[in-house]
Amino acid sequence: MESSTLIPVSPFSFFLPKPHNRTWIRRNYSTTIQCNKMYVPGFGEASPEAKAANHLHDFFTYIAVRIVNAQLESYNREAHAELTEFLDTHSLKDGDKFCADLMRESPRHKTLALRILEVRSAYCKNDFEWDNLKRLASKMVDDHNTRLMRDYVLETSHEES
Amino acid sequence: MESSTLIPVSPFSFFLPKPHNRTWIRRNYSTTIQCNKMYVPGFGEASPEAKAANHLHDFFTYIAVRIVNAQLESYNREAHAELTEFLDTHSLKDGDKFCADLMRESPRHKTLALRILEVRSAYCKNDFEWDNLKRLASKMVDDHNTRLMRDYVLETSHEES
Repeated sequence: MESSTLIPVSPFSFFLPKPHNRTWIRRNYSTTIQCNKMYVPGFGEASPEAKAANHLHDFFTYIAVRIVNAQLESYNREAHAELTEFLDTHSLKDGDKFCADLMRESPRHKTLALRILEVRSAYCKNDFEWDNLKRLASKMVDDHNTRLMRDYVLETSHEES
Repeated sequence: MESSTLIPVSPFSFFLPKPHNRTWIRRNYSTTIQCNKMYVPGFGEASPEAKAANHLHDFFTYIAVRIVNAQLESYNREAHAELTEFLDTHSLKDGDKFCADLMRESPRHKTLALRILEVRSAYCKNDFEWDNLKRLASKMVDDHNTRLMRDYVLETSHEES
């Protein structure tokens, strides 16, 4: 028989009416540890991390296009003009569609598209500061929470006085 | 006189017409090392990481609202109904504005808003899998780049044949 042990890993486990069903770790000494993360509804098969990665993917394409266009500006004015013109008529909201369309525009545009693919990969893996992103997001949530509560307190104390 | 040494840290440094002006490291033996990240134009004082953190901040608020509403559904139907009704009439696009408005709706709504602030902080710091985000985004860029190139090759080889 297996023994089952629940280990709360979050200090906010009192918020948990439902167990988080995403991650189960089975140790080889036959103990099942349940990961007590908060249940996030509405993501179906995907996860919030996959959803966020999807958004970042489009963001990296947007950044790669800006990087490549700025590079072209200084040493290939013709290609810079072509890419700028293409940008005026094609949305960057769906990064992959933008690249697919760019590839099919002309052989010269195809070369630009291939460079954008290469740059977005290099940017994601080498240049983007992932640790900084986590640090900034954590600081942001603290700062904004404090500001929201302070504004409310100031507003209501003003009303009372 | 100082001697200046440029050390390329990215394998894509040949893409670099302009030096990246964000990070300069000055060593105490009087050598200046320039960080050769690709120059990203158009972010002014902010950074791509700050922009991404800003988007994630709203995403965490959206998730916190879903978490809290799912929790309420199972043990406080009245509060669940109130939050659902509020969601129908207020956009979650700007998370901080949503929370500020919720706080000012009624004392009961204020309690819900405070819980949402607490949950978004806990989610960002404890539950969100940052390493997984990086892994998924890196895999996504590889997979999508391969798919875009494969689709193009298949399409053009079909035309040729």
